[in-house]
Amino acid sequence: MAVYKTFQPQDALAYAVAHTSLFEGLDPATLSCSEIGDGNLNLVFKVSHPSGTSAIVKQALPYARCVGESWPLTLDRARIEAEAMLIESELCPALVPTIYHYDAGMAVTIMEDLSDHVILRQAMVAGEHFPRLIEDMARFLADTLFFTSDLYLDQQQKKARVAQFINPELCKITEDLFFLDPYCDHERNNVYPGFETRAAALWHNEALKAEVAELKFRFLTEAQALLHGDVHAGSIFVRQDSTKVIDAEFAYYGPMGFDIGSFIGNLLLNFCGQWGLMAAEDQRNAYRSGLLESIDQLWSGFAERFSEHLSQSTRDPSLNTLRWQSRLLRGIWQDTLGYAGCELIRRTVGLAHVKDLDSIADEQRRLQAAEQALILGEALVLQRHELDNMADVLAMLVDKVRY
Amino acid sequence: MAVYKTFQPQDALAYAVAHTSLFEGLDPATLSCSEIGDGNLNLVFKVSHPSGTSAIVKQALPYARCVGESWPLTLDRARIEAEAMLIESELCPALVPTIYHYDAGMAVTIMEDLSDHVILRQAMVAGEHFPRLIEDMARFLADTLFFTSDLYLDQQQKKARVAQFINPELCKITEDLFFLDPYCDHERNNVYPGFETRAAALWHNEALKAEVAELKFRFLTEAQALLHGDVHAGSIFVRQDSTKVIDAEFAYYGPMGFDIGSFIGNLLLNFCGQWGLMAAEDQRNAYRSGLLESIDQLWSGFAERFSEHLSQSTRDPSLNTLRWQSRLLRGIWQDTLGYAGCELIRRTVGLAHVKDLDSIADEQRRLQAAEQALILGEALVLQRHELDNMADVLAMLVDKVRY
Repeated sequence: MAVYKTFQPQDALAYAVAHTSLFEGLDPATLSCSEIGDGNLNLVFKVSHPSGTSAIVKQALPYARCVGESWPLTLDRARIEAEAMLIESELCPALVPTIYHYDAGMAVTIMEDLSDHVILRQAMVAGEHFPRLIEDMARFLADTLFFTSDLYLDQQQKKARVAQFINPELCKITEDLFFLDPYCDHERNNVYPGFETRAAALWHNEALKAEVAELKFRFLTEAQALLHGDVHAGSIFVRQDSTKVIDAEFAYYGPMGFDIGSFIGNLLLNFCGQWGLMAAEDQRNAYRSGLLESIDQLWSGFAERFSEHLSQSTRDPSLNTLRWQSRLLRGIWQDTLGYAGCELIRRTVGLAHVKDLDSIADEQRRLQAAEQALILGEALVLQRHELDNMADVLAMLVDKVRY
Repeated sequence: MAVYKTFQPQDALAYAVAHTSLFEGLDPATLSCSEIGDGNLNLVFKVSHPSGTSAIVKQALPYARCVGESWPLTLDRARIEAEAMLIESELCPALVPTIYHYDAGMAVTIMEDLSDHVILRQAMVAGEHFPRLIEDMARFLADTLFFTSDLYLDQQQKKARVAQFINPELCKITEDLFFLDPYCDHERNNVYPGFETRAAALWHNEALKAEVAELKFRFLTEAQALLHGDVHAGSIFVRQDSTKVIDAEFAYYGPMGFDIGSFIGNLLLNFCGQWGLMAAEDQRNAYRSGLLESIDQLWSGFAERFSEHLSQSTRDPSLNTLRWQSRLLRGIWQDTLGYAGCELIRRTVGLAHVKDLDSIADEQRRLQAAEQALILGEALVLQRHELDNMADVLAMLVDKVRY
């Protein structure tokens, strides 16, 4: 195992040449490498040859890039990311990048270059549509969550997996940014000027805080399945005919609804953001309606496929009861709504914002969109036990949001 | 670390002399040692000197003693037991035996001899009463469950603890014997002659099986606190003025209600068993009433102390909300009832019976007591969401059981 050092582009290039067969027979002098990362925690290099052959070299930094060296982070997350992606790629080979090489000592993974894809967030901010996205994500969520759970895995093997994916530092980021900061006057919060009073209302909403406590406790204690842990629109690469989920470093055993809710939360953030992003009203309304349909399709696609797995692949006879399985699915549904709500709230007033809101040029529209996000977030968290199905949710959405 | 070999008494004696200072200055020839274990998984030796100095040498066997070498078991459980007991003894020093020495390689722990105590099960079968028992157990449960949970521990440290106490093989025993066997026609089941039809009714009770699936899934996934994992009346030593909880080898991170429910289930097993154990009706009724009062006191003692910890020692500000904390306590309550019900059922028709029922001489009375245990077990599992408080539970008990 090599000794860790932070890569410069030339290091990443030499490393990719030495540890993959991709560039065999090519003159190293004809290869180029540049750092292309815009994430918060890692260096991301692209190594490429004019012929088109390329690879991504991703290296974990020993601190959170967005905060700086004052927030140190374990390099073990590179191991967790690589091992989680290997499991995901066994279950959904088409939906994650190919991993060519992984080195725990250097905290480096070499993987498929997805330059022919775009980051979903950017595309959605631009109002683009991807016909495969929803079906692919429903499959990704149903397959990764079911087949890593006690429903399918040998239960002794599952416990070993829980230990393998104990991920304290990355979980702490979520525990703080998702569940703590937005509900108190935390210095990490990032509140738009003019939005202070609205944000402060969160700190004194005792009913909301009790529900968020429940969702946080479930995040802390419910080892249901191996989560991706960070299914936001910046962790998904898309092409018209392809979907790839990246950045699994937050993986750990947690409540299934967290991954589904994170993704739905991001669709809703875009829904809110379009209020200020898309100028033409007709076009905007049509796009937003499409997003709501997507959310409906995402859940029904997930639920259908997960239910199929439940009926066909549940290994433990004790858990092979239809009555209980529908209760399980209802619990996942309620968690999904709750975590989607938390995502909406924390992306609006917490540390890590999203372009769906931040890039709205008109200040008043931006604040209105942020207000929509908070209203939806609060409603999802508070009403998740009463919202029986997606029709109820969509009715609530349309009722609450200027549209 | 020594290489494992199964101890004979002379090995245990020599080991105790070599690894504690208890017998310093005593002529080894004056020491004696005998195997006194009656448990299912271990050898238990008592090493003693005529002066009264003594110690227990407990060694894990590489298989389940009650089943035989066909059910192999990891020796790692000796590590888990010793490490769990060390945590328990930090939290409740008076309520667990002192540990003098622990050796992972030999799977051996040397601990305080509790020969001046009796095993609670035997004492309760004999109808004895222990004035400290309930208060001590309420304290043991409240303190060990609260202070090993995310409510109190640094949440990163708690995750390391989860990994430390991953305990697949011992958990599997519970997963099978508690949650699987009694609800199907399993060869491991042990059904009284004449009770076959009653037992078989469990296999076809779909409502019951759905609730048991929920309880099993929570046992598999809910990493709330470091459980003892096996709080039955054979794991508790008592004296009029002392209570000691032993045998922590089933320890793992699970749902808090499992430990509380296991203990209450054992009080109820004795309640049912007294129907056939105690001949004099007045005495029996008084003793049984006392048991119900004990159950009431156990829960209220636990809830009071746990609530005190919640209000005074919750470290995570997100979880420091009274509204949510009362919901948490209600969830623990419902789990407690459910797991108590499972304990009643599995001890009646499953592999591992209890003397509270088995030692009833009169066959008809024994079957009646077993029937009471099943009725109560089913009612606790099925009605745990409607039983709002202990008064409801006791009313249900008195209503269901000939008394």
